[in-house]
Amino acid sequence: MRNTLAASAAVLAFAAASGVHAEEGMWTFDNFPIARANQTLGTNIDQAWLDRVRLSSVKFGGCSAGLVSGEGLVMTNNHCVATCVANLSTPEVNYAEAGFAPRTREEELKCPGGTAEILTDISDVTARMHAAGEGLDGQAFTQARDAEAGRIEQEACAGDATVRCQVVSLYRGGQFKLYKFRRYSDVRLAWAPEDRAATFGGDLDNFSFPRFAIDAAFIRLYENGQPVVTPTHFKWNADKPVEGTPVFVAGSPGATQRLLTQDQLMTVRDVVLPLDQLIASELRGRLIRFSEESEENAFIAMDPIVGLENTYKRGRGRMAALTDPAFMAGRAENEADFRRRVAADPALTARVGDPWGDLTAVQPALRELYPAVALLEGGTGVGTTAPGGGSQLFSWARTLVRGAQEREKPSAERLPEYADSRLAAAQSALFAERPVYPSLEQLRLEWWLSKTREWLTVDDPRVRGLLGQESPEGLSARLVEGTTLADPAVRRALWEGGQAAIEASDDPLIRYMLSIQDETRAVRSDWEARIEAPTNRASERLASARFAAYGDAVYPDATGTLRLTYGRIEGTDVPGQRFGAFTTFAGLWDRATGAAPFDVAPKLLAARDRIDPDTVMNMAVSSDTIGGSSGSPVVNEAGELLGANFDSTVLSQRNAYGYDVRVNRSVIVTTGAVTAALRDVYGMERLVEELGVE
Amino acid sequence: MRNTLAASAAVLAFAAASGVHAEEGMWTFDNFPIARANQTLGTNIDQAWLDRVRLSSVKFGGCSAGLVSGEGLVMTNNHCVATCVANLSTPEVNYAEAGFAPRTREEELKCPGGTAEILTDISDVTARMHAAGEGLDGQAFTQARDAEAGRIEQEACAGDATVRCQVVSLYRGGQFKLYKFRRYSDVRLAWAPEDRAATFGGDLDNFSFPRFAIDAAFIRLYENGQPVVTPTHFKWNADKPVEGTPVFVAGSPGATQRLLTQDQLMTVRDVVLPLDQLIASELRGRLIRFSEESEENAFIAMDPIVGLENTYKRGRGRMAALTDPAFMAGRAENEADFRRRVAADPALTARVGDPWGDLTAVQPALRELYPAVALLEGGTGVGTTAPGGGSQLFSWARTLVRGAQEREKPSAERLPEYADSRLAAAQSALFAERPVYPSLEQLRLEWWLSKTREWLTVDDPRVRGLLGQESPEGLSARLVEGTTLADPAVRRALWEGGQAAIEASDDPLIRYMLSIQDETRAVRSDWEARIEAPTNRASERLASARFAAYGDAVYPDATGTLRLTYGRIEGTDVPGQRFGAFTTFAGLWDRATGAAPFDVAPKLLAARDRIDPDTVMNMAVSSDTIGGSSGSPVVNEAGELLGANFDSTVLSQRNAYGYDVRVNRSVIVTTGAVTAALRDVYGMERLVEELGVE
Repeated sequence: MRNTLAASAAVLAFAAASGVHAEEGMWTFDNFPIARANQTLGTNIDQAWLDRVRLSSVKFGGCSAGLVSGEGLVMTNNHCVATCVANLSTPEVNYAEAGFAPRTREEELKCPGGTAEILTDISDVTARMHAAGEGLDGQAFTQARDAEAGRIEQEACAGDATVRCQVVSLYRGGQFKLYKFRRYSDVRLAWAPEDRAATFGGDLDNFSFPRFAIDAAFIRLYENGQPVVTPTHFKWNADKPVEGTPVFVAGSPGATQRLLTQDQLMTVRDVVLPLDQLIASELRGRLIRFSEESEENAFIAMDPIVGLENTYKRGRGRMAALTDPAFMAGRAENEADFRRRVAADPALTARVGDPWGDLTAVQPALRELYPAVALLEGGTGVGTTAPGGGSQLFSWARTLVRGAQEREKPSAERLPEYADSRLAAAQSALFAERPVYPSLEQLRLEWWLSKTREWLTVDDPRVRGLLGQESPEGLSARLVEGTTLADPAVRRALWEGGQAAIEASDDPLIRYMLSIQDETRAVRSDWEARIEAPTNRASERLASARFAAYGDAVYPDATGTLRLTYGRIEGTDVPGQRFGAFTTFAGLWDRATGAAPFDVAPKLLAARDRIDPDTVMNMAVSSDTIGGSSGSPVVNEAGELLGANFDSTVLSQRNAYGYDVRVNRSVIVTTGAVTAALRDVYGMERLVEELGVE
Repeated sequence: MRNTLAASAAVLAFAAASGVHAEEGMWTFDNFPIARANQTLGTNIDQAWLDRVRLSSVKFGGCSAGLVSGEGLVMTNNHCVATCVANLSTPEVNYAEAGFAPRTREEELKCPGGTAEILTDISDVTARMHAAGEGLDGQAFTQARDAEAGRIEQEACAGDATVRCQVVSLYRGGQFKLYKFRRYSDVRLAWAPEDRAATFGGDLDNFSFPRFAIDAAFIRLYENGQPVVTPTHFKWNADKPVEGTPVFVAGSPGATQRLLTQDQLMTVRDVVLPLDQLIASELRGRLIRFSEESEENAFIAMDPIVGLENTYKRGRGRMAALTDPAFMAGRAENEADFRRRVAADPALTARVGDPWGDLTAVQPALRELYPAVALLEGGTGVGTTAPGGGSQLFSWARTLVRGAQEREKPSAERLPEYADSRLAAAQSALFAERPVYPSLEQLRLEWWLSKTREWLTVDDPRVRGLLGQESPEGLSARLVEGTTLADPAVRRALWEGGQAAIEASDDPLIRYMLSIQDETRAVRSDWEARIEAPTNRASERLASARFAAYGDAVYPDATGTLRLTYGRIEGTDVPGQRFGAFTTFAGLWDRATGAAPFDVAPKLLAARDRIDPDTVMNMAVSSDTIGGSSGSPVVNEAGELLGANFDSTVLSQRNAYGYDVRVNRSVIVTTGAVTAALRDVYGMERLVEELGVE
């Protein structure tokens, strides 16, 4: 039941004029509509409030998180630490199964490769970036821009491993901002529940509500072997939440496509999502069968299956939106309104030209090139498919070979991910001590090689280059059996040995990676010249037109950087999605059948009598979130933490392309549920105390 | 290079006026455009020619075939006998691997459940069928029509197991014809090559050209333990084929959707194909991994994987057509032309109303209901998904339970597949002695249950009915372990025992099937009432309008019944598909890499020196075919057999929705290649002699 009392006539008028809903928007912290939010919600936040929230918000890998104590303690989702938990576990000591509940701080364990960042500064670099691309076309345009971004980042952050700088393209190139982060590379796992307590209902309940999942975990930031002192953090508020309460969600949503034109979206519908989804579905089948073959395989495949199913289900939700005639008609109307406004202003039209037509003209080439780029190179920005099929060994080999080749050149001429300013991140990933499972690696590589051959066809010269006279089965087995890259020392030696070490290596995966560079780099160049450059140029003009038509009451597409969104605690009552705002532990006991994935985690079940059944587990809020928002702190007007965002509903997946306040709901695990789990289930009183719960 | 010499101005004018291409059309034998074909091709066929071709053409299961000797010998494709070969094989004696080459006629083996039919009579029953549905709506309409069809079939064929009658709906209900078939239920395998000789290139070369596959096999019709005497048959012509030669292809193409409106096609694009393809892709992944687990599993999964990949690749080709802006724009123009013609004729408009609008109005319900019907009941007519996931045991249990329930009622009140006239076919399938592999059955059922739960959601009451408190994994294992339906004697006893035996059975699969009848039958009724009936009624008016606008120069959609199509031997030169008309054995030797699926079959490879390398293996022809046309005899003007159709190209898959003479190419295995295989590779001189080769 939607609470509209606070939506004054002024706000409604604003929404109509700007083309956005009152609660729509993943706003940057330097352009948050304070007045509008306060008016919509009846709150009274200010710039100081925003600064405190920003400095208490943490980016952890691809997830969001929030500081909750003065000693570096951070809450995020359990699914955000799943890879860390998997890396720390073995089939014998399996923390995913048993939970991770260290009795002392000293027993907290470092997450291999884990890094956390806090956004400290934002500055505008639009002029420099636009000047760098001036008068250029095709790949030259892309390269000049990339090089300028690398220079800006390097100038601002050179030589300091505790900071990271990133030039962020906003409004699809309409603005460029330099984001500066405080960076922590010693992140330790402080608590994770039994995996089933966090994933009750598994893939079936994923992206849905009502929900009964304690999808929460704690990490702690360390530096020089000590917990980081963090006076600025969220106050833990475990009170029972109240329906209608205004909430703010701070996090790093990954990517939206709201500024895409209708023709661009049709390419996503017709070409991008079908390829991504069809091949993911086959991998899912292979992994499911693999996991059924033995206990060990089940352990190995658990984390990959969860990740894959999550992406796949999200893709299904997006496909449903793009094939929903009503949704697409609404979006077409918005586009028509925008075009009318531009057409009505001859000076504007003269300045921006016809960006819609220019983007339409790019689509045939995008449709043609997408399979090759997605499968051989990745980084398309429109789809999720990437080369190597998710093989960790493949990814390391690529970083090693390209890193060596690129470091031979001046920073500005390199592939942007190997610019000086970004080498630290590449090294972190490369040197992390992670387990490697050869059976899984082989499965992934075989699948990837076989799908690449299938989609590009066996007679494509690039496929001939990829396979030679070998089969996907034979080649993947040979590479995985022969490589020694699973050893971090080997990776470090190859990285530090540079191009000479790479050229001298007889590791079959390194040799293989060297052998496919010509084809894969050519595919990338082609994409940059024919797709990326003209798309970026037209998108910038579109963004410029949008500023002219709507002002900066328009927010930029999500880009994996920190945003703030707002809404209320509330359920929905639209067809296909009817639910109240809250679930409780009592509901969990009711829903349990005993058969996976509807089996209650053993320790949680054993604690049933100790937990107040009316404690709210999960709640729905109307804020505007998307993948990457996982773990986002959900705070009230007082800046107190009420929970962590961990999901949204299937219907909400259309928010990739447009926000609809009627259906858009984020799913939150409450501080109350986490408090109960820590205290009543997992014996983590020391954390309860640290959180200041009385 | 397309040969247009014979396309006279008159023919081109005709094509423009009728809206169809000169060579387009899967024509019924009682409405074949003799004059037009002769004019287009420069041939001189007549009604007697048509009758001979019809009586020499055979329907074999879901495939087509042709009589080639006076002693019941029939050529079809190897992939059409693949299930027969799999059923006759064991991991130890594997005819798929070694080929099946019986030295004497006595060693020819009966295909379990195999039946063959020859179309002997066609008569018009449109008036009776239309009268039966007069004034009715919804499910009553569907049931009345089904009952009338059952009565017509029963009247014409009652009590004679050697004939089968079928009321065929043509032009989506615009016409109804009674087809009478001579039926043979003792079909024996007379020759099959090594499977790899027929499937060189595997799934990768499937639906493509150039092609190098001896996808041919022979069966023989028996009756009373003796080969059937068949004086009417095709003369074998193994001469080297000549480019540009006019050809006719006689076969039973399965289904086309050329008469669907644009809105109906968009439902296929948005809802039907995505579901079918996504879940098929997951099954494929499960089966591929399963087949890699052991030699035995590889043997078990081979036939299912080939069938699945074929359907899946066809689906990809169709999706490519439906998402091709140019193709859809062309089709939209055709629809607009049709609507203009109807609108220009007020009397016609008054009579047919607005069938396009009526069909559009059905689409939201179709979009909503498709997943449940496809997964729980099948028989949607628009998609390929069916309940049970392809489990043979499930299918038998369904026939047993429903057959018993339905036979309690008068024939006219039953589900149409259990009308008296159709019981013989049901029994043939049920009593066939086929191997059952529990591991495969369990895999299929588990996949089906898990996909049904996923797509309908776990909270759907029908899913609760399907699973109870069990998991897909647990339930599928319990059912397969406990059932005794793999034993043909058990199935026969349950069938003959009728409803009493079914009710008394404690077989878990029978109990389970009984328990899900309410839900699954309700889904079917809903579909019949809300989708099938209004669609059929509107489609009939559309067909009626089409007759009025274009005359019967329009052919009906394919319906799995005998059709004749014509064209020429020729390659193509369109983007994405450039090739000449022929491939030779020399090309096969060139393409072979030694790695599966590009390894030449051992016996074929051993015979390399004996085979003339210039012998044509496969050829492309421009005739209008689709799945089900596999095995179709390809004959010249003299009625001589030149080869058997076995495939078409990926681009040709758009012919489900519309014929395009520029891209539509069928792929043919030549009589010359088959002759070489029989004589030079497999030592089948006795068949060569029977074929009359000198």
